[in-house]
Amino acid sequence: MDNRLFIDSCFRKPVPRTPVWMMRQAGRYLPEYRAVRARADFLTLCRTPALAAEVTLQPVDILGVDAAIIFSDILVVPEAMGMELVIEEGQGGPRFPHPLRSASDIGRLSIPGAADRLGYVMDAIRTAKRELRGRVPLIGFSGSPWTLAAYMVEGHGSKNFRFPKELICNNPALAHELLEKTARVVARYLAAQIDAGADAVQIFDTWGGLLTPPAFREFSLRYIETIVREIRRPGIPVIVFCKDCAHHLPEIAQTGCDVVGLDWTFGLGEARQLAAGKVALQGNMDPTILYARPERIREEVRSLLAAYGPHPGHIFNLGHGILPDIPVDHARAFIEAVKEESPAFHTPA
Amino acid sequence: MDNRLFIDSCFRKPVPRTPVWMMRQAGRYLPEYRAVRARADFLTLCRTPALAAEVTLQPVDILGVDAAIIFSDILVVPEAMGMELVIEEGQGGPRFPHPLRSASDIGRLSIPGAADRLGYVMDAIRTAKRELRGRVPLIGFSGSPWTLAAYMVEGHGSKNFRFPKELICNNPALAHELLEKTARVVARYLAAQIDAGADAVQIFDTWGGLLTPPAFREFSLRYIETIVREIRRPGIPVIVFCKDCAHHLPEIAQTGCDVVGLDWTFGLGEARQLAAGKVALQGNMDPTILYARPERIREEVRSLLAAYGPHPGHIFNLGHGILPDIPVDHARAFIEAVKEESPAFHTPA
Repeated sequence: MDNRLFIDSCFRKPVPRTPVWMMRQAGRYLPEYRAVRARADFLTLCRTPALAAEVTLQPVDILGVDAAIIFSDILVVPEAMGMELVIEEGQGGPRFPHPLRSASDIGRLSIPGAADRLGYVMDAIRTAKRELRGRVPLIGFSGSPWTLAAYMVEGHGSKNFRFPKELICNNPALAHELLEKTARVVARYLAAQIDAGADAVQIFDTWGGLLTPPAFREFSLRYIETIVREIRRPGIPVIVFCKDCAHHLPEIAQTGCDVVGLDWTFGLGEARQLAAGKVALQGNMDPTILYARPERIREEVRSLLAAYGPHPGHIFNLGHGILPDIPVDHARAFIEAVKEESPAFHTPA
Repeated sequence: MDNRLFIDSCFRKPVPRTPVWMMRQAGRYLPEYRAVRARADFLTLCRTPALAAEVTLQPVDILGVDAAIIFSDILVVPEAMGMELVIEEGQGGPRFPHPLRSASDIGRLSIPGAADRLGYVMDAIRTAKRELRGRVPLIGFSGSPWTLAAYMVEGHGSKNFRFPKELICNNPALAHELLEKTARVVARYLAAQIDAGADAVQIFDTWGGLLTPPAFREFSLRYIETIVREIRRPGIPVIVFCKDCAHHLPEIAQTGCDVVGLDWTFGLGEARQLAAGKVALQGNMDPTILYARPERIREEVRSLLAAYGPHPGHIFNLGHGILPDIPVDHARAFIEAVKEESPAFHTPA
């Protein structure tokens, strides 16, 4: 591996500068991505290894990020479990036309081997690894069981997620049945991504922050913990990103993960204190800062570097995915600012 | 005042049981409210004191809550400052067709005396107070300057609030001009509500949780603090509710408010430790729990009472507004559960 900044930082080893990548970095803000999407709809892109690998590499080539993340979508997992997934252009996000609303709906879900129904993701990983030629590490990922279950039961994104919330209140045993099934598939899926060549994996818990603290522990974190335990391999860092959950950081750090991802609403200095040297931290610039002028972006980068302080164990990232209408020049200014400003916070070897 | 449970709890005085009310308690989940709305659209209801007072009293009569909150909307303040406000049935929330996008847009905003353009709210308060005949206290309210400014600049609700975020990044001086103007209007407005008879006031910062910690301090909390200082009167508690900001509780408590409102994502016991006896706490049941069976609602009430512990200074509430499709029986079960379960957590006089 030519660039070990990301992997070393995941394990809190000294590095000459802070590594940086962006959640959703292979995305619509890049004209080169939009050019590929003009030829293939979103799901076709996910399912065509050569195209998925192509857009995976774009931000490495165009912006010089320190890690690639395989292009895919978290909802391919429920699809592999047997749910019809619909993603229509401009129709307000992906949806499952037949959401899970009964014990028999949940009973019908299958637990595929990862190679059975998600082989195209492993093919995309193998292709991307080959084309990366060791320049930077490749990150694999999955949604957390709770986040996937929330979509599967609601049927689509939602402000309140009424139906999954009702399920955990009124029928926690059935909720656990769904979460256990989903967790088994996610663990197999992430293990298969590592087998295919992923150098690190990230678990996205986008909707953990909608839960009360006891419900977060019972219905989200406990399944993340099981998965982390099952997929741990020497040298392959596991990142857990639970959005709107930074106040749960000490508990998240106890899942056995190496890195905790943070959204932008929590101070990085305070988070480092809560992490108590047990995990590295990834984040956490407000993605909307990228609308600002490049000088302002650089100021924010400096202020976050200072907030984390002069220590290893920080991977710079946005606090959530890059937004589709960000100018590419601003994304580039962000990456450059991290590269230029961060050496001052690291001790020369 | 016949029922002093709410006011006494705001000042952390001993009470025989925990008081309870619900944010957005005068709302669509009540058939009696829907009957009034069948006769008048939303803004007409806000602007007609007799009708606003009627729906304000409904939850007192129907559910037996321990406080009423005047029926209105936070966006009547920007409207009074000169912005056209449109609320169309089923059209996805209120919007300002001409959002603030330039210095001259912001320069044109007027700073009305509260009586000039919002006199109908004071009339509604006077009518509601008269009709309440001292049964329970009446709460007045306003949006925080940041929350109002976010709507005024974006034009409507939003996931990312791109335009107000861009404004605070690229032109903080102009953002402060807008926030200062808005804060002056909000302070006058809340003072006028107290003059008209409001027994307590609540400031809603719905969108403070979208900001980074330094931006939250600079663009939201500092204006809340100014307002609290300007409107404080003996015996009239001030409640500050910043959604998704419980981790900022110690700073919110330093604004001089008497009560901090909490959403459901933060532990009430932990919040009490952070509050360190300086403020009372209001909250914080997950509003989606009201979809659950009444036994499950009661369990959750018990568990939150236990989390707060045997101390005065807790006002039971939801962590956000009651949702429009909650069965009335479930809302009633919630109120009854607080009344029946909470005496065990208070010392008899």
